[in-house]
Amino acid sequence: MGIAKNAFYAQSGGVTAVINASACGVIEAARQHRDKIANVYAGRNGIIGALTEDLIDTSLESDAAIAALRKTPAGAFGSCRYKLKGLQENKAEYERLIEVFKAHNIAYFFYNGGGDSADTCYKVSQLSEKMGFPIQTIHIPKTVDNDLPLTDVCPGFGSVAKYVAIATLESALDVRSMARTSTKLFVLEVMGRHAGWIAAAGGLAADANNDIPIVILFPEIEFNQAAFIDAVNKKVEQYGYCSIIVSEGARFADGRFLAEQGARDAFGHAQLGGVAPVVANILKQALGYKYHWAVADYLQRAARHIASKTDVEQAYALGQAAVSMVIAGKNALMPTIVRQSDCPYQWAIGEAKLEDVANIEKKMPKEFITEDGFGITDRCRRYLSPLIAGEDYPNYENGLPQYVTLKNSPVAKRLDTAFKL
Amino acid sequence: MGIAKNAFYAQSGGVTAVINASACGVIEAARQHRDKIANVYAGRNGIIGALTEDLIDTSLESDAAIAALRKTPAGAFGSCRYKLKGLQENKAEYERLIEVFKAHNIAYFFYNGGGDSADTCYKVSQLSEKMGFPIQTIHIPKTVDNDLPLTDVCPGFGSVAKYVAIATLESALDVRSMARTSTKLFVLEVMGRHAGWIAAAGGLAADANNDIPIVILFPEIEFNQAAFIDAVNKKVEQYGYCSIIVSEGARFADGRFLAEQGARDAFGHAQLGGVAPVVANILKQALGYKYHWAVADYLQRAARHIASKTDVEQAYALGQAAVSMVIAGKNALMPTIVRQSDCPYQWAIGEAKLEDVANIEKKMPKEFITEDGFGITDRCRRYLSPLIAGEDYPNYENGLPQYVTLKNSPVAKRLDTAFKL
Repeated sequence: MGIAKNAFYAQSGGVTAVINASACGVIEAARQHRDKIANVYAGRNGIIGALTEDLIDTSLESDAAIAALRKTPAGAFGSCRYKLKGLQENKAEYERLIEVFKAHNIAYFFYNGGGDSADTCYKVSQLSEKMGFPIQTIHIPKTVDNDLPLTDVCPGFGSVAKYVAIATLESALDVRSMARTSTKLFVLEVMGRHAGWIAAAGGLAADANNDIPIVILFPEIEFNQAAFIDAVNKKVEQYGYCSIIVSEGARFADGRFLAEQGARDAFGHAQLGGVAPVVANILKQALGYKYHWAVADYLQRAARHIASKTDVEQAYALGQAAVSMVIAGKNALMPTIVRQSDCPYQWAIGEAKLEDVANIEKKMPKEFITEDGFGITDRCRRYLSPLIAGEDYPNYENGLPQYVTLKNSPVAKRLDTAFKL
Repeated sequence: MGIAKNAFYAQSGGVTAVINASACGVIEAARQHRDKIANVYAGRNGIIGALTEDLIDTSLESDAAIAALRKTPAGAFGSCRYKLKGLQENKAEYERLIEVFKAHNIAYFFYNGGGDSADTCYKVSQLSEKMGFPIQTIHIPKTVDNDLPLTDVCPGFGSVAKYVAIATLESALDVRSMARTSTKLFVLEVMGRHAGWIAAAGGLAADANNDIPIVILFPEIEFNQAAFIDAVNKKVEQYGYCSIIVSEGARFADGRFLAEQGARDAFGHAQLGGVAPVVANILKQALGYKYHWAVADYLQRAARHIASKTDVEQAYALGQAAVSMVIAGKNALMPTIVRQSDCPYQWAIGEAKLEDVANIEKKMPKEFITEDGFGITDRCRRYLSPLIAGEDYPNYENGLPQYVTLKNSPVAKRLDTAFKL
């Protein structure tokens, strides 16, 4: 590989409890190979940092600060929602990326994100070849939605799943306590606009130790109001209470989200719900039981305090693997998690070609949802259960987790051209 | 004290992450004094269990099961929202309690709850004297609202405060990551209809380690929309984002809750908000920034997975103290937490007379809220900080906390009279 080149690392899309663990894996592995990778530059606010030549010099961060990334949620360098257009539509963006990479002697591009960023990675690798400036691009998977193909799981998902399973269990015990004279229904809204993976994790709260009544609304299953009310009522009749987990993506047969109820406030503005209050209202009208509802929103994906140890380890290992791949001369790949067995859960790092990953969404298999559409099957449980296993607590001081905020010092610019986003 | 008598223990009102730790303290202490306390009977679903003679025999639970209560959230015996009326209005209820206590040789009454249950305790102690059937009544404090007088803190509050502080910190890091191109505002709704103690805890997330912009809406401060919008906008201009913590009890100058916006759904039903979406909407209209919002609801008070160690220890110690008090022949008291110093936090068990506790609400002192009405003062921080200190994790199996479900076997009835609630 000759003289050591630099690497570029960027975080993309919605952040997670463990995306920084992948960053930690990349930077720690790179620091083991200074002969090959001189420095890791991070994009400030993701790919925007590359386009605007706003790079962060990670070599100015101490080993301790980088190690602390493993236990810090959210995106330490900033992320962004910025999808590069197609090569035909906006070639200038890709050319600008390569111009910035060239100016900073960057030969390795690590992009940590979901389906869109895998696609961007793929396009950059194609273009770099055409433009005769070789860049090895590696996509590091990350998404709480768990919708990337060819990997057993996406880092970020296991920790959200653990959060949702625990929240479902704890709130169910609360409602069980109160049900005699007060709240009988608890509705928890969780993320997952297109796939029910996160909602499915709520089902893990009911197991051999905890006989808890749970009804789940998946985006994969057309909402059937009568069947739903009936399912909940049967649980209340049997248990005295019921927990309902609803995916934000739950929708009617005609494709409308349940959350779109056409409600207006006093000023005529559209209601800003939440599907949870809508579902609670449907049940209240039909059954009359007292309810409570919660919307976890960012709390679920930022909850590093209760991250899955499995998830943290996988996120870190995938970051490390990305570095090993470029050192081995590989290109246009995504390191993956390969499941070797369910119980005990054994996994290894594999690899997938970016052209096979980009723009393919992994849906929940039909056999993971019970026939009535409101629960998870044993097969689903076997898949999910190991992903939430283990705890990996942050350190605490004065009752609060000690999360790191990096210095994020800029790399001096070398181009005299600005770039308009 | 002659032949050993039985004790009655009941949980009252909204449950918490640590009310079972108090139950654990009561039962473990009683088991150390079998010569004085033959058995602890628990009320199934709180005081309703006493009125309907539906008692639970805790002697049938193993020592391990009772020990596990210390790490199990919610109400293990069931709680209820059932306020006994005044002695004049419904003497029959109090007479029934004493009838049941007599039938089961119960001489000690431990009632674990908030202000209402302290009042009930007091009335029972008065009546038992008049009726010539001596019952020693001890009220064990519990309420996430932290509104009981004469105690430094109410068990349950410290754990909610820790949850809210961590949720505020973690979600702020998430928003900080995304703010460049996406979400700039995050609104978190927390409990506390009458007092802002829980909302105040959100302020703990900003400290020497974390320079986080937080604006708090307290129920104690009349909502001033223009000042609020201005405060949030200033934070966004300075930091690029802002976290907003809103108490469910936040209200307009005329006393209406912010949550009451008069919104109607497509069917004309009143909107079931949440104050969080209302506040998010106000900011969106005024400032136009992208927002997210969350409603923690029961998740915050059931979150035993991240309970405050201080809170758990105090809840347990107050349960133990209740038993010590009756053994010492005391009556009509509430054990309290006495703060001896802030830093290091030192506390001891004290006692308050029930007549001084009943029906008095402790409000947030004015000097705990900053002059602009949107933040907490250093004095507030000194008060709150030790209450969230320390972690006390449950045990886990397969990724889930191992919470105990008791057998809750009934005590054989001795009365042939039913009682209509």
